[in-house]
Amino acid sequence: MEKCIELAKKASALGEVPVGAVIVNAHGEIISEAYNLRETENRATAHAELIAIELACKKLGRWRLSDCSLYVSLEPCFMCAGAIILSRIPSIIFAACDPKAGAVGSLDNILNDKRLNHQCEITQGVCSEESSMLLKSFFKARRKK
Amino acid sequence: MEKCIELAKKASALGEVPVGAVIVNAHGEIISEAYNLRETENRATAHAELIAIELACKKLGRWRLSDCSLYVSLEPCFMCAGAIILSRIPSIIFAACDPKAGAVGSLDNILNDKRLNHQCEITQGVCSEESSMLLKSFFKARRKK
Repeated sequence: MEKCIELAKKASALGEVPVGAVIVNAHGEIISEAYNLRETENRATAHAELIAIELACKKLGRWRLSDCSLYVSLEPCFMCAGAIILSRIPSIIFAACDPKAGAVGSLDNILNDKRLNHQCEITQGVCSEESSMLLKSFFKARRKK
Repeated sequence: MEKCIELAKKASALGEVPVGAVIVNAHGEIISEAYNLRETENRATAHAELIAIELACKKLGRWRLSDCSLYVSLEPCFMCAGAIILSRIPSIIFAACDPKAGAVGSLDNILNDKRLNHQCEITQGVCSEESSMLLKSFFKARRKK
């Protein structure tokens, strides 16, 4: 998760909302890492998690990431939580909650929805305060501009 | 929507679940078109709608698609509905419902969720039967293999 925070800081330096994500395999080896790039790439879907999932699929040459875990510094939104289900990731670990758009406990929890064909183990709270502080300073600085 | 069905047939010919999507601007001009490519590209996120959104952002050079409409032959899943919200598309038109994974009326309707910072007008049913038949034949043929 420290790696995610580090990636989130890189996003912040580019004027992007500071969120970082890392995908590791069952041996704990890093498969992919990414951070938000919406403004830089002018792409609505360029969230850290989605980019990390796409990079992991590319690296492993398969769309099923059923032996991987995803670490992310902020609770995933509906798009990213949906992508976690589609890629069959069995375990995610996230830091801060997102009360405005989070789809893994805040507004909804689609990763535990038994009607879908995949469920995912969720761990929340690791480095939560560090990630929250980073997000708060980012938005505070942006409001001042 | 006929264009979406045509694109869905292209997906089917590649062994992909037959779903096609088209994004048009306010003048009705086609900005992007796409079909499912999950198996071909080995990418969990390669759904028609997500690819169409990414192509539209690239073509227009911006992440806000607030002057566009999205046509798709199947009800969007959570990932794609989430991407519609993130790209601020104000109107979607879809053909068949997806009772197993649909996030726009079947399992949930996140495009009408007032807690999120964007809502979207939904039209359902155009070419619904044609799209359903295409999906049914695809899955029937696949089960026989």
